[in-house]
Amino acid sequence: MGESRIRIGLLGYGTVGSAFVDLLESQKSTILSRTGLELVVTHIAVSDLNKDRPGLDTQTVLTDKPSEVIENNEVDLVVELMGGLLPARDLVKAALEKNKPVITANKELLSKEGKYLFMLAGERNVDLLFEAAVAGGIPLIRVLRESLLGEPVEKIMGIVNGTTNYILSQMEENGMPYSEALLEAQKLGYAESDPTADVSGQDAASKAAIIAMVAFGADVSLDDVLFEGIQNISSADVAFASRAGCAIKLLAMISKHGHELEVQVYPALLPNSHPLSSVRDSFNAVFVEGTAVDSLMLFGRGAGGMPTASAVLGDVIDAALNLSNKTYRGMEDLKEVSLLPSGEQKSAYYVSVQVVDEPGVLATVALVFAKSDISIQTMEQEGMGREAHLVFITHEVEESRLEDALSQLSNLSCVEKLGTVIRVLEA
Amino acid sequence: MGESRIRIGLLGYGTVGSAFVDLLESQKSTILSRTGLELVVTHIAVSDLNKDRPGLDTQTVLTDKPSEVIENNEVDLVVELMGGLLPARDLVKAALEKNKPVITANKELLSKEGKYLFMLAGERNVDLLFEAAVAGGIPLIRVLRESLLGEPVEKIMGIVNGTTNYILSQMEENGMPYSEALLEAQKLGYAESDPTADVSGQDAASKAAIIAMVAFGADVSLDDVLFEGIQNISSADVAFASRAGCAIKLLAMISKHGHELEVQVYPALLPNSHPLSSVRDSFNAVFVEGTAVDSLMLFGRGAGGMPTASAVLGDVIDAALNLSNKTYRGMEDLKEVSLLPSGEQKSAYYVSVQVVDEPGVLATVALVFAKSDISIQTMEQEGMGREAHLVFITHEVEESRLEDALSQLSNLSCVEKLGTVIRVLEA
Repeated sequence: MGESRIRIGLLGYGTVGSAFVDLLESQKSTILSRTGLELVVTHIAVSDLNKDRPGLDTQTVLTDKPSEVIENNEVDLVVELMGGLLPARDLVKAALEKNKPVITANKELLSKEGKYLFMLAGERNVDLLFEAAVAGGIPLIRVLRESLLGEPVEKIMGIVNGTTNYILSQMEENGMPYSEALLEAQKLGYAESDPTADVSGQDAASKAAIIAMVAFGADVSLDDVLFEGIQNISSADVAFASRAGCAIKLLAMISKHGHELEVQVYPALLPNSHPLSSVRDSFNAVFVEGTAVDSLMLFGRGAGGMPTASAVLGDVIDAALNLSNKTYRGMEDLKEVSLLPSGEQKSAYYVSVQVVDEPGVLATVALVFAKSDISIQTMEQEGMGREAHLVFITHEVEESRLEDALSQLSNLSCVEKLGTVIRVLEA
Repeated sequence: MGESRIRIGLLGYGTVGSAFVDLLESQKSTILSRTGLELVVTHIAVSDLNKDRPGLDTQTVLTDKPSEVIENNEVDLVVELMGGLLPARDLVKAALEKNKPVITANKELLSKEGKYLFMLAGERNVDLLFEAAVAGGIPLIRVLRESLLGEPVEKIMGIVNGTTNYILSQMEENGMPYSEALLEAQKLGYAESDPTADVSGQDAASKAAIIAMVAFGADVSLDDVLFEGIQNISSADVAFASRAGCAIKLLAMISKHGHELEVQVYPALLPNSHPLSSVRDSFNAVFVEGTAVDSLMLFGRGAGGMPTASAVLGDVIDAALNLSNKTYRGMEDLKEVSLLPSGEQKSAYYVSVQVVDEPGVLATVALVFAKSDISIQTMEQEGMGREAHLVFITHEVEESRLEDALSQLSNLSCVEKLGTVIRVLEA
């Protein structure tokens, strides 16, 4: 390996951008001795040129015009850490068109425009790497694209949103109601002041789309992903799950069912024997099942400046090595796939129903399930009077059949309100 | 990516070898569409030519002379799955000298001759890949060599031997004595009829040496690794640990202490809050701590034909891509490192002492600890009469100071016998 100097243009200098510059600076000599490559951030596009940035090398050129970084002939490789669809999309496109490898941590961009950008990178024979876009410091993308490239992957289940995992962990461990756990997450900086993208499941849905592209070569974008969030989960639901030997987790589920692919995000009751159920706090983890490799789980920090910068740096080194070897890591063309129609999916379900506390209610409710041919694994009555809940766990049933039964239930006079409906997964 | 045909010569056709051939056969078209590469096993060296092998492609050339596979000009890439030091070493060396990339799952070979072979591969500009040598289907090596190449890794703790993890899990979950759990492991095929290599910690020590080379670029071989096994651990030790909120795990520990590197294998009490403590049965897992990435854990199948074949296939595809791109993934030259002298390491310890059950014993024993300036976190007396045990957990103490105290204890008339001494780690 000869020595060579790779000049990096960085777009965005927020939490991750500045962590990346610091990390690269501290690891420069290690990287040089391990790879023969000298990596230097020569240009940075920032939003405010007047801000004081005492830590930065005085040689680094700052600009508030990101396109100048892309165009500059002294930039060999572009790192996009601005986030958001625009102008990131046009900048990444412009960089690839100039045959410059791009590293990005932008889940929104890839979940919406991934197909086009992967194709463009392939046409230009350059790398488009994005480890940090899915699970922060967890090397999921590399493992899927490289280690498991020949593996018959069957299923991927991921806890890929740290905010919701933190909230659910607090609800379970400390019996907090949802609203209080959310407030706590906001105080700690895990949740934004408008937490919708996280708690609605949309953030996880972006990541599910990217995982489906990488693991199954599937032409899936964010719009194709059905997602449910955790906003309606009560501490009673979490407590019931706990008594039933389960944890409630928000899962990104990408799995093969014959020729159809399921790509969804939903909360689920997961038995304590499943490795994902013990993933606490804001940690992320992704569980992969393959025919040959059997079970594989990757666990770590899904967000945060430094863990994300670590993933970005891994990609930067890879792309820099490829650049100096005049090669790149291609991605297959994404194929159209049939997505599993949601109504046909079978699952066991947890169903909570708020009822009038009077004799005969259980029989009336049970009859609705029986007529819909839905068999019940367990039933429990919680609370009394106006707070009375019936809580059921069903055997496996198609979603559409369950929905039917639920709409019948909601018409019963003894039913005050339908509560939470959550899938129950096997170990 | 153009299409090209890579011809694979396979050395060894046992459990992993035949699983590899089957897996490659089933994934051929997927690999072709994803990479443009046609991978074919053209030659296989077997030990017994007369054995019937109905599943094999009739085009595949079988030989009982492995060197013919290496020498053959129609073999582009060599997969070594024979195991053992010889003749594997000479065959791998010969293949590299003919500029052929080598994939190996041979931990013994790499833990003893890794430095020389990595250097040779570097001189010849070819890949020497070995994912399957350390943790079966778990992609640890790729993550260390690629994703974390720029990461300031501080510590790696691994459960890298499935046999001992199965035995310890059985002892914990079912209260089995060691001998019974070992028998159970042998019945299930997890342990060999002579289980020494596994239960003594030697197998894990080979893997620790390889991890030290890859993660820290350290010139460490099996001979440098101190290892202890699990043969002396009793079900009483495991039960005590459990009451103390810990699991006993056999750990490969590779960690930086200033300028010194610790590379050891030992059983340890690990608090239940540590992600490694919930790794059950024959599963393996490796926990990595880095300054930037924080905590990362990889979990999966550390052995078995198919999971190991999955790792081999990942490497084969990588080396084949590199071959067709005329590149390779180099490894830094291994550097001499100072290994932490074992006596200076500090740890808390679990110490079990079999004593005569008479008044004043505790005071006598406690005085020995006090005189050696070893402070005690907890003490418990177990059993009565001739079965009486005192069980201590100490605060942190240098190993040498503890050994001193232990030798004084063994000279006391009230001490029948020293029992188990096990490190206690923090979460």
